[in-house]
Amino acid sequence: MNWEANVRKVVPYTPGEQPFLRDMIKLNTNECPYPPSERVQRVLREFDASDLRLYPDPGALGLTEALAAHFGLKREQVFVGVGSDEVLALSFLAFFSGGKPVLFPDITYSFYEVWAQLYGIPYRCPALDEGFRLKKEDYLTENGGIVFPNPNAPTGLVESLETVEEIVAGNPDSVVIVDEAYADFCGISAMGLVDRYENLLVVQTFSKSRALAGLRIGFAAGSPKLIRYLNDVKFSFNSYTMNRLTIACGKACLEDEDWFLKTVGKIVSTRERMKAELKSLGFSFPDSGANFLFVRHESVPARQLFSALREAGIFVRHFDRPRIDDYLRISVGTDEEADRLTAFLNGYLKKS
Amino acid sequence: MNWEANVRKVVPYTPGEQPFLRDMIKLNTNECPYPPSERVQRVLREFDASDLRLYPDPGALGLTEALAAHFGLKREQVFVGVGSDEVLALSFLAFFSGGKPVLFPDITYSFYEVWAQLYGIPYRCPALDEGFRLKKEDYLTENGGIVFPNPNAPTGLVESLETVEEIVAGNPDSVVIVDEAYADFCGISAMGLVDRYENLLVVQTFSKSRALAGLRIGFAAGSPKLIRYLNDVKFSFNSYTMNRLTIACGKACLEDEDWFLKTVGKIVSTRERMKAELKSLGFSFPDSGANFLFVRHESVPARQLFSALREAGIFVRHFDRPRIDDYLRISVGTDEEADRLTAFLNGYLKKS
Repeated sequence: MNWEANVRKVVPYTPGEQPFLRDMIKLNTNECPYPPSERVQRVLREFDASDLRLYPDPGALGLTEALAAHFGLKREQVFVGVGSDEVLALSFLAFFSGGKPVLFPDITYSFYEVWAQLYGIPYRCPALDEGFRLKKEDYLTENGGIVFPNPNAPTGLVESLETVEEIVAGNPDSVVIVDEAYADFCGISAMGLVDRYENLLVVQTFSKSRALAGLRIGFAAGSPKLIRYLNDVKFSFNSYTMNRLTIACGKACLEDEDWFLKTVGKIVSTRERMKAELKSLGFSFPDSGANFLFVRHESVPARQLFSALREAGIFVRHFDRPRIDDYLRISVGTDEEADRLTAFLNGYLKKS
Repeated sequence: MNWEANVRKVVPYTPGEQPFLRDMIKLNTNECPYPPSERVQRVLREFDASDLRLYPDPGALGLTEALAAHFGLKREQVFVGVGSDEVLALSFLAFFSGGKPVLFPDITYSFYEVWAQLYGIPYRCPALDEGFRLKKEDYLTENGGIVFPNPNAPTGLVESLETVEEIVAGNPDSVVIVDEAYADFCGISAMGLVDRYENLLVVQTFSKSRALAGLRIGFAAGSPKLIRYLNDVKFSFNSYTMNRLTIACGKACLEDEDWFLKTVGKIVSTRERMKAELKSLGFSFPDSGANFLFVRHESVPARQLFSALREAGIFVRHFDRPRIDDYLRISVGTDEEADRLTAFLNGYLKKS
């Protein structure tokens, strides 16, 4: 029995745990602490289940057109997928096939490395500077493609639109993917550049700022040519990935701008409050423009805090990786969750 | 601007068209002509949309466990994906990495070739015999993996369980994938063999016999080791592919065995009626065990019939490929749809 010789061996990505405990505070996977727009509930109540017997539109047209309208783009400039992870996974397959190393930061979304390994794409990881800032000159050398998040994860740091544009403009021979999973929490986005740069792909998600992690919606905007190539690869993988319910719910959610502005506003305001409170408790952190903080305490090691928080039913994320193993990533929750977090830390740190 | 040098160029799969016309008869993509179980509608009515703010369980546990219970398997033997296309696409990536050619029939589901090309997997396509039967000796030669549908598509022909088992048993050094998208319509399945053969993966779908093409649910059953390898690749591609609504609806649908038996029974009975009627109109066809017929007329070319049917608002499928370009694939619809089809053909053929 040697069938295993034909098997692709990979070290898979480890997603944040999904615990189910009463009264827990779940600040470990950067979900939205508020329910989605009520229009989503209405779609579910009114959806005719008999429509589900038919395949969905393979291009998820209803949602693609709504996104194009929302961002002032043409339909041919938008691509949707099952979470931004699917959009990114297919983009790696589509755009990073040249054989030269793809570039992404040493500290970043850990899935980039997993995709590169899955597809056998060579890659290089220029180190962020001491303050976790991207050094743009690292991305102006020869490469087979570039990808980075802005704001970066798990640091939360935002690079200016000027820096992003310099990297895109300086790489006419590569596709540059800007992963904007958290962009709605800082208001800086390269979306406005896609009409000017044929090689720029901007990826966003409904999982964070739109409170629909459980529905799996991601999307990309780029030049019609880039989107066509991405669709060719997508249609070679799975013609129908976005289901009928998701298309309908996603469209309804996108159209509720009032809900969106109010929800993002609340999260940003809690984040700024958490910054002040954690600072007064002896934590330091890069200045986050995302819906999480990446914090280190002046005296108590991250690992110890992680365990203590966990025992108290407060779930945060710790990455056992070089340079960041003394940090915790804490999602921004509701004000009540922030209160419970700081109350616990206040008590715990006094005892330590 | 030479970024296109890094782009993967592929010839994508062409899905059957999804027309939206009033009064059309859609017999082109093998969907179920009846609505899904009423339990699905109930799930939608009762689902709390606020749950959608949280990521789903990455292993789609609720649905995986329901499938394991349904088929008398362990949870570790079941894998779910976004339609059987995702399950198959990930299986190609996971199991066909050995470098030796993968085998599948020359006339079969055309996506197999697309996946092989997408991933750069070498492949060979042994010819079916004149009656479109698989010659099992073709699959007892050296190979890097085997995949075939049973019943085959687009012929509808069913190979016996003995033939399937001989191929599985004769290939201990390869993973053998049996694609059973249509197995519920013939009652022959290799599901009962997965406990005995570590190298056998059986793939099924909710898109045909369970009337949920619009929800995108496929699954695979195999040895725990095979499923573990498949999960490793899946978690390296996208951790969360199956959304919360789909998990809940899929589980509810699976549990309604009465609906399932009744629905499959109606489709099989209409299929047998269609066989008799089409035969009397001068059509011949392999004896289908699926929810479609693969028919050729004794005097009128398929292309001509395809256009005439289309003009009459009756959509069927024609494949412009060697050996089968004089056939039409016609999905089994309701009895009323079958009546309208034969009434039209009867009139048209009299005029021809």
